[in-house]
Amino acid sequence: MEKIIITTSDSVSGIVVGGRWQAVVKLLPEKDAVIITDSNIADIYGDDFPDIPVLKIEPGEKSKQFKIIDSLAKKLLKAGIDRSGFILGIGGGVVCDVTGFLASVYMRGIRAGYVSTSLLSQVDASTGGKTGVNAGSVKNVLGTFRQPEFVICDTTMLRTLPDDEYLSGMSELIKTGIIGDRSIIDLLENNTAAIMRRERELLTSLVSKAIRYKASVVAKDEKEAGLRRVLNFGHTFGHAVELFSGVKHGYAVAAGMKMATLYSYRKDYISRKDCERITDLLKRYNLSGDINIPPEKMEKMIVHDKKRTGTEMNFVFIKGIEKPVVEKIPVRELIGFYKDYLKGIVVI
Amino acid sequence: MEKIIITTSDSVSGIVVGGRWQAVVKLLPEKDAVIITDSNIADIYGDDFPDIPVLKIEPGEKSKQFKIIDSLAKKLLKAGIDRSGFILGIGGGVVCDVTGFLASVYMRGIRAGYVSTSLLSQVDASTGGKTGVNAGSVKNVLGTFRQPEFVICDTTMLRTLPDDEYLSGMSELIKTGIIGDRSIIDLLENNTAAIMRRERELLTSLVSKAIRYKASVVAKDEKEAGLRRVLNFGHTFGHAVELFSGVKHGYAVAAGMKMATLYSYRKDYISRKDCERITDLLKRYNLSGDINIPPEKMEKMIVHDKKRTGTEMNFVFIKGIEKPVVEKIPVRELIGFYKDYLKGIVVI
Repeated sequence: MEKIIITTSDSVSGIVVGGRWQAVVKLLPEKDAVIITDSNIADIYGDDFPDIPVLKIEPGEKSKQFKIIDSLAKKLLKAGIDRSGFILGIGGGVVCDVTGFLASVYMRGIRAGYVSTSLLSQVDASTGGKTGVNAGSVKNVLGTFRQPEFVICDTTMLRTLPDDEYLSGMSELIKTGIIGDRSIIDLLENNTAAIMRRERELLTSLVSKAIRYKASVVAKDEKEAGLRRVLNFGHTFGHAVELFSGVKHGYAVAAGMKMATLYSYRKDYISRKDCERITDLLKRYNLSGDINIPPEKMEKMIVHDKKRTGTEMNFVFIKGIEKPVVEKIPVRELIGFYKDYLKGIVVI
Repeated sequence: MEKIIITTSDSVSGIVVGGRWQAVVKLLPEKDAVIITDSNIADIYGDDFPDIPVLKIEPGEKSKQFKIIDSLAKKLLKAGIDRSGFILGIGGGVVCDVTGFLASVYMRGIRAGYVSTSLLSQVDASTGGKTGVNAGSVKNVLGTFRQPEFVICDTTMLRTLPDDEYLSGMSELIKTGIIGDRSIIDLLENNTAAIMRRERELLTSLVSKAIRYKASVVAKDEKEAGLRRVLNFGHTFGHAVELFSGVKHGYAVAAGMKMATLYSYRKDYISRKDCERITDLLKRYNLSGDINIPPEKMEKMIVHDKKRTGTEMNFVFIKGIEKPVVEKIPVRELIGFYKDYLKGIVVI
């Protein structure tokens, strides 16, 4: 078991990797704690939940809405939760986002912690303190920066994930390997079968490496003024793909990473070898789907993406493994590259 | 013209009192700024608004809902506002609350400033960085702490206020006099006619005194961990009155202050003279309505109030002018006092 501490200007957050999630009961206050979870997670793990009230939301992105936050707030009021209360989110990214947002705004902020049940949320969503709900079809337009008090990442919970969710999380793990820790890539390349069998030790090692990297970035730039933007590698195109095709986040980010990698190669930022290594790794984990969004739709979705500033936008390239760089590029150039990509003009 | 600066751990907010509001145009960024206002304010002052997009909400408490925030967020997206954008709220407390909340969560936080048009918002709502929306009938359950970059308080704007709104704001001014600055009370007692005529000089002096006191409290305790609670003088009963009777905030707070004053007197915390001085001042400004909420309803509303902690709650008493004290008292005692008050057992 490992504990990683993230310290920002006004918070300390402890992320526990590798222990058993049931130990969460020791971290809860004696009274006024409530669980938020989704119905899938409640079905699988509900019998072992701590003995406190449980508020359930529907699984999936559709729960990331103000309507749901509003209704949960009313339930908290009804349960008598005041500003000394505590919300425990048990679930994947959606549950953590909803719990985190609610905890940031309920009575102008109450305490919260997560038991993170999906690979995606263990390596990404639950670390870093970004919370978010959607406005219409636009993802995470409304949100806050707020670190939970703790996050518990028990990798045995990953065994109950459907395959596509597991691989979706793998995509963010690959991302972290590319931008921040080559030893993740080595492990993913050399232990594919064991990782696909979801061996606990390996997963614990991978998840804790990913969290350690992310924690180091977040501690330096909690509010994404600069450095933290590197974590968006693959996300510019990725968000558009997710929005357009409705595939799971990780699959969309994988498609976005493939494009960002080829784009970096076209700009001569990386070698052919690095480019192939990355695209091969994505293939190895079945994360190499094809994209066919019409360019004008792509542009429309990208300029609505919140990382845009004016008609230029920040785009994360790589100049090698562990060497992400953020550059402002005109939206026009980005779409130009995308058109070439669609035509197959960008090939290795 | 006077500029009062509030510095908190992560923000600097400048409050300008006494200048002309039209000067706000100099404080706006060159692009990506949007105005949020209500239809009343737009009718009166719209012709002089800076030449940027205007989003209107309906006047009144019903606009403090997630539904409205959601719809405004979609409009900001449509207007191409990204995280480098700016929202200018022009209006009273509701507009400032909505603008502030939206600015705290839109793209996880963008810049905002206010032109504060009502007496209530000039002396209270727009200073201090509390933002809030309601959940069902419960006020300000969802909110954030966030200082605007600036607040402009032009007291000539107060001339267009309906009488009841003006007096509602007067109530918070009286509150500030009681808890923090006796010179406000002196002015209110000695210049009643001129103040009722809304003479600019006097109002500028009163508003700036009130802001200076509030700023000094907020700078020491932005997030209401302790000291700031004194600002809730009159608000425990006041919120319940507001909720039950639907009267304007200031009238409800005035009723709450009267009760808190009598309660302080019953506990021998203040002299009969101070008690009479306060109740007389409330009468002088027509803020001395009677209350007749059934005790069981009062209790229900009070325990839903967010300042409750367990079955005890923080209540603000006074031990003299400028001497507020926060004490934890059992809800039962509070309701006991209220029952006596209703029966007329608490009299001066």
